[in-house]
Order: sequence, then structure tokens, then C-alpha cells
Amino acid sequence: MKTQIKKAQRVCMITHILTENPNKDYSLGFFADRFGCAKSSISEDMKLVRASMEAAGLGYLETTAGIKGGVRYVPYISREESLKVLESLKALYEQPQRMMGGGFIYTTDFMFTPETAKGAARIFAKRFAALDLDVVVTVETRGIGVALFTAELLNKPLVVLRRESRVSEGSTISVNYFSGSADRIQQMSLSKMALKPGMRALIIDDFMRGGGSIKGIEDMLREFDAVTAGIGVIVVAGGRDNKKIGDYTPLLLMNEEDKYRIRMDINPDVIA
Amino acid sequence: MKTQIKKAQRVCMITHILTENPNKDYSLGFFADRFGCAKSSISEDMKLVRASMEAAGLGYLETTAGIKGGVRYVPYISREESLKVLESLKALYEQPQRMMGGGFIYTTDFMFTPETAKGAARIFAKRFAALDLDVVVTVETRGIGVALFTAELLNKPLVVLRRESRVSEGSTISVNYFSGSADRIQQMSLSKMALKPGMRALIIDDFMRGGGSIKGIEDMLREFDAVTAGIGVIVVAGGRDNKKIGDYTPLLLMNEEDKYRIRMDINPDVIA
Repeated sequence: MKTQIKKAQRVCMITHILTENPNKDYSLGFFADRFGCAKSSISEDMKLVRASMEAAGLGYLETTAGIKGGVRYVPYISREESLKVLESLKALYEQPQRMMGGGFIYTTDFMFTPETAKGAARIFAKRFAALDLDVVVTVETRGIGVALFTAELLNKPLVVLRRESRVSEGSTISVNYFSGSADRIQQMSLSKMALKPGMRALIIDDFMRGGGSIKGIEDMLREFDAVTAGIGVIVVAGGRDNKKIGDYTPLLLMNEEDKYRIRMDINPDVIA
Repeated sequence: MKTQIKKAQRVCMITHILTENPNKDYSLGFFADRFGCAKSSISEDMKLVRASMEAAGLGYLETTAGIKGGVRYVPYISREESLKVLESLKALYEQPQRMMGGGFIYTTDFMFTPETAKGAARIFAKRFAALDLDVVVTVETRGIGVALFTAELLNKPLVVLRRESRVSEGSTISVNYFSGSADRIQQMSLSKMALKPGMRALIIDDFMRGGGSIKGIEDMLREFDAVTAGIGVIVVAGGRDNKKIGDYTPLLLMNEEDKYRIRMDINPDVIA
């Protein structure tokens, strides 16, 4: 005998499933089957979930068109939450013990702390929600955490460009680029299987000074006849202009006060 | 005037917040303040959320001790869901176009597809839930996705060992190890700031043949006076015995039928 599941229980389960699967389409029938109740009941539940999430600023439920009709949870981060994320990111970057001299900062630890990386990813996911995307792209290693959470929130695969070409990548395409921070020519490579022509990519990286590394990623996308749809960078140094790339969104702007001291400013655009 | 929030709405918001923050402690007061209602109401809501999540096999709510008292959401994956994850992982690995010869398989794409990586991470998070952990550890690059999601589900930071030592890592410790798959001595390095003595680490890696790379990670942990608390590997090749390391949990066991064909078997332990 199938036990009737009560409304509040259905609301709990629907919320849980949608929250765990951002930007994924679900038909009302999926939940009706799972809970053994009428689609009309699910439709009522959905109204309540939608209203609760929107009232609390936790995200939106978008109604998807098509024969089946359904819903999709779109994550949201409020201005206040964004500011909290950026303030704590700024404080981490500014810790004096992280300064390695010459503008180098030790960031590998917090770049891979899930709560920190996901906070930055939420801001990017909100900023780039309206782009028509196929894929998120980054280059190894430090940006991978934020890029992966951004990809998860947007429900897209992540493509990671490698610094070295490895046998397990099969045939690869390599691109040379000038890294201002390393002050030399470097190489990035990507398996020929990784991208298809026409794909629209969101580039995410952790740091930019001259823009050489992101220009390298754009060159790589062109090699695959793929398209740069947007660029998000966590920290930009040396002012926002005179970069090798076009339009991009930084979270923090780095000002070097001397070789061992920096100041980070929050990009006002991302909390507007 | 503060509007009274209804029960079903509170249930929705509590579920959303707990689901987004696995293994994080929340006091009942946190929700009472946020919703402007009595702790006794939150306590009733929590009973309903707990019962719904457990009935649906989505996870547990653990009551945390201490003056404040509170709850923590512990994610769960059922036997059936685990089997689905492993079947689809197995199917990906066995695709003939991924075989690069010599036992090398192209996996970088699905290792960074959030849904796939998070599925594997759910199995590891369930398996290692009872360990008293401080940190999850991996070595770049392909295992980072699964390791990061495992860290997120367990609410621990991820430490990523680098193949090359970079200026932004500050002073580093390096360890040499023999990589059976590369058939040569390789090096991994880690910033001296990355770990503290006594820390208990869960090692996650994507592939093991002889165990050299994981033994390298264990050597590195010893250099920091840190402790290996558990080891999870996605794929193990060449049989489960005669590895350079002790107890470990694989998800899939790889059998090479010839140079260009493999068969993956699901480790029965992880779906028991």
C-alpha cells in the first residue's frame, strides 16, 4: 500500500531535490510519480516552494516550456550575501603572511575551501545566468575550484586546459602565450575531444595581470571554433584597462602599495 | 510589521539552507531569529524535515550537543542511487574512443562534469562519514573535481598537492615518488602553510595502478606530521592486492583485456 505523503513533506523533498540540482529541468510528472499524487497537488506545492524561495532570496523557480512543462531552480545570491562573500575574500587576500613578494600571493588553500570557492561561484553564476552557455572553461590549477562550482550552479560541464600535454589526453592542440607574472612564454594544451565547434564558453580564472593567460584560453577556443561568451576573473591586478582581452568581470581589484603589501577593492559592479 | 511565516514556508527554507550546507552546524536559534518565530516552532519544523529526508533517503539530520543545541544535515546516497552512479561511470570509462593505448584512458572531460564528479563524491562522503577528519587531500589534476565535492559534502577544506613547485606557494616541501604509469620518478610539492601537525586527512585520487602516487601523498602527510585517515580511489588497475599502500576504497576495478580494451567491475563493497 502506498502511503499518502503530506504536503509539508512533499515541499521538503521538492526543495531538497531542486536545491541539489540547480538549473536542471524537472517535469511535474517526475514529482507526481515519485510521491504518488496528482500533478495538480505538485503544482500547488510548487507555488509554495517558489514563493518561499523568492521571499527568502534563495533563488527562483523558472517555469520551462514544452509539452511536458516543468520547473528549474535558478540559484540567486543577494547583494548583502555577495558583499559578505567579497569582504571575507578580500580579508583572506590581504593577510600579510600570504605575501610572497613581487605581487605573488599564497591562495591555494582558500581557493580550494568549498565554502569560499562556492561563494565566489555564486556571484559568477548570478552574473552570467542569462548567457546562453554550453561549457565553463578554465586553465589548471588554482581557478579549478571556483570554475567547477560555477559550472555546477549553471549545470554545465567544466573543461580544464592543461599546462602540460599528457598521454591520457590523446591528440591535443597547444597554444603558446606570454605570462606576465611568470615573465616568459608558457604553453597550455587541450585534448581534441574536449570541445566542439560553435560551443559557447564562459571563461573563469583566478588571477589576471596583463591578460596573457586568458588571451591564451581565447586563442584555444578559436582553434576549436568555439566562442567566448563571457569572462569572470577573481582578482585583477594593475588596473582594469590595457588588458589583452575585451569585456570581463573581476570580483576584486588589486592595488600593490609596495612589494609586500596589497589592498583589495571590491568591484562595485558585482554588488550593484 | 514582521509578517508571520507559515509552516510550509519555514520547512522549505530550512530544507534549502541545510541542503546547501552539508555537515554544518545550525542552532535552532539561527532559524528562529531568521523567521521571527519561537524555537519551539522550529523544533517542530525540524522533526518534519528530519522525517521527510529520512523517509526519502536523502540524508539525515543529526542533533548536535552543546549549550546551543542544533542540527546538522548529513548527506546520504542509497544503494540504488550508488549503483546508478557507478553504472554510468563504468559506461563512460568503457567507451572505446577513450582508449589511448597502454592502459591510458581519456577521462578529463567527465571527471570535471559536475553531475558525474558529485555522484562519485556522494559515495565517498557516505563511506568516510564516520572518520574524524580535518582535511581532504588530492594531487593535481584529474581527481580535483571529485575530491572537491567530497570535501564540500564533508564540510572540510581541500588541499591540492602540486606537480611543480610555484613561486606563489612560498616555501614548499617536495616528495619524490615512482609513478608506474609514467614509468619514472616524479615530484609533488606542497606549501609549508598547507597542513598542520596532527591533522587527519582523507586522500582522494582518480586512478591507481601500483600505488606510487598515493604512497607519495602519504609520505607528504608524514612530512607534515599529519595522519592518513582514509583513502578513496575512483579506479584501481592491476588487481586489488600488491599495492604500495594499505587499506583503500576503490569505486571501480579495471581489467585490461588487451591494450585497447578494458572492462570495469563495480567494487561490491561500496554498494553493500
